[in-house]
Amino acid sequence: MSLLPLGAVHDLVSPRLREALSGLPASVRELAFLHFDSCSRPDAPLDVGKLYRAALTLAWNRALGGDQGQALHAAVAVELVHNASLLHDDVIDGDRLRRGRQTVWALRGPAAGILAGNALFFLAVQQLNTAGDPLSTSGVAELASAVQHMIDGEWADTRVPQDADAYLSACEGKTGALIGAACALGALTAGATEHRIGQVRAFGLHVGAAFQVTDDLLNLWGDPEQTGKPHRGDLANGRNSYPVLAALGAGSDASASLRSMLVPGQASRTAMLERCAELVEEAGGRAAAGQLAARHLEQALTILDHACPDGPDRRALAALAHQAARRST
Amino acid sequence: MSLLPLGAVHDLVSPRLREALSGLPASVRELAFLHFDSCSRPDAPLDVGKLYRAALTLAWNRALGGDQGQALHAAVAVELVHNASLLHDDVIDGDRLRRGRQTVWALRGPAAGILAGNALFFLAVQQLNTAGDPLSTSGVAELASAVQHMIDGEWADTRVPQDADAYLSACEGKTGALIGAACALGALTAGATEHRIGQVRAFGLHVGAAFQVTDDLLNLWGDPEQTGKPHRGDLANGRNSYPVLAALGAGSDASASLRSMLVPGQASRTAMLERCAELVEEAGGRAAAGQLAARHLEQALTILDHACPDGPDRRALAALAHQAARRST
Repeated sequence: MSLLPLGAVHDLVSPRLREALSGLPASVRELAFLHFDSCSRPDAPLDVGKLYRAALTLAWNRALGGDQGQALHAAVAVELVHNASLLHDDVIDGDRLRRGRQTVWALRGPAAGILAGNALFFLAVQQLNTAGDPLSTSGVAELASAVQHMIDGEWADTRVPQDADAYLSACEGKTGALIGAACALGALTAGATEHRIGQVRAFGLHVGAAFQVTDDLLNLWGDPEQTGKPHRGDLANGRNSYPVLAALGAGSDASASLRSMLVPGQASRTAMLERCAELVEEAGGRAAAGQLAARHLEQALTILDHACPDGPDRRALAALAHQAARRST
Repeated sequence: MSLLPLGAVHDLVSPRLREALSGLPASVRELAFLHFDSCSRPDAPLDVGKLYRAALTLAWNRALGGDQGQALHAAVAVELVHNASLLHDDVIDGDRLRRGRQTVWALRGPAAGILAGNALFFLAVQQLNTAGDPLSTSGVAELASAVQHMIDGEWADTRVPQDADAYLSACEGKTGALIGAACALGALTAGATEHRIGQVRAFGLHVGAAFQVTDDLLNLWGDPEQTGKPHRGDLANGRNSYPVLAALGAGSDASASLRSMLVPGQASRTAMLERCAELVEEAGGRAAAGQLAARHLEQALTILDHACPDGPDRRALAALAHQAARRST
């Protein structure tokens, strides 16, 4: 993991993100800063999250020999879209906690969460629009297409996938599409061919799948102090994550016991959540999810070998891919 | 009013709108068609509303000698943004009725309303992005800037303006910004100078103010059969519209009686709403709103005289401006 210049990514992206947010009308800017935990003082540091997507954009740009200035515009745009979707997801899921803090809708009402999300969505478009070619043309097309795919996945996800196929399709849109675009925009700003951009996007889709399945695992067995999200919130909210679907599909006694406990409204007390998590593990759901993440990681690494010349930049991208599947936050 | 080719606008814009919607991922497209009342049959006509903003885009384009093909892309984009904002507003306001039908969130839940709105927002960006210069560059900038202004106005509006100044500032953003952009995009696609585009946008801002104040009047005294919205919904929802603010500010006995009735939760029964509307009228709120709309109309017409050569196209634009202040739906 020491290869990852995530601190450097933060130092590059965070001031640009703040600069972009400063362009918002004052009242909406206040909501946006509230999301980034920096509304009280104009010079307070932004809590911008992991910047994982921005890191992918910058790493692919560097690996393919691109101009970092252009890539920074793209990295900021991708993070803005990511945060816009978080603001809306929190309203949709009724989640009151994110990054260990109260969410914007929990503090200021659903309208605040919806409108601040919209502002960040369009700020992302503005970021690419003012960056010049190719971002203002092909870059906007890449991002908008990813957002449509993401919306499709989010809508599929709200309808609670009932089997692994439905889950994987929703997850490709919900998480993969934007990570794919983050990678593709890095390649685009490096002047890559469409063929190469397609490979790089596919790398991102696999990384995104590994990332989402790992998210599911962290939700069930991660440390809520580190994730900043409600422990086992997926189970409590009746969301069928991959470990749960794999466990339900195993056909064992534990699967049957789990199914009987997942009646809506039942699985909300901590002790029940604990027991459900045990049954998911007993029925093999935890192991199956780990294997699925590993499989997508492997596919991403195979594409990486074809799409990126060997060297320190490829190793940095491989480390980022590994991080999707082996992280604690 | 006979100068207005609104039927022609519908014939031009409606098929292009359907074509744009057809590019959405299937599940989200279904939600979008639900909003446009056309989900059951692929060939059913879309209920696209008044297309007032599209008419302004096309009329300004024609008045300044532009290319209709480009203007059509802009007109579709503006209507998509308008409908996206309606989808979100209905969630935010909890409105279950729009165009005489159930709203998307009322039918499929808040997530559906939020996500379908997002899809239309980005479809608008895609519409301009694929239209080539100047829409893919300056056009996206114009639209995105208007959307930020609109979001700012919507957020101000949710916090219930307490005086006429706060109301007018919110209303310029909420309604004026997009109508301003609709006009400006018509001028942009006609190759107008920045100075001219600025005049045209200012025309739209005044038309937008007249439009919103008229909306407020229709909400209180219009025919709900024609507006398709809940009668006196603004009063019932505790929204301070201009007639109410003007009445409260008049300092008469009727103002005091009105204030005592506007305690939250009080003014919800039909008889109470009826009495409130009477008091608004008695305190001069209805007349003041009519005068404000007339003043903005006049300012728009003055700008029109400077920005547009005399002839049938100017008369068509004047008729559209009049329609903002004198309409029944």
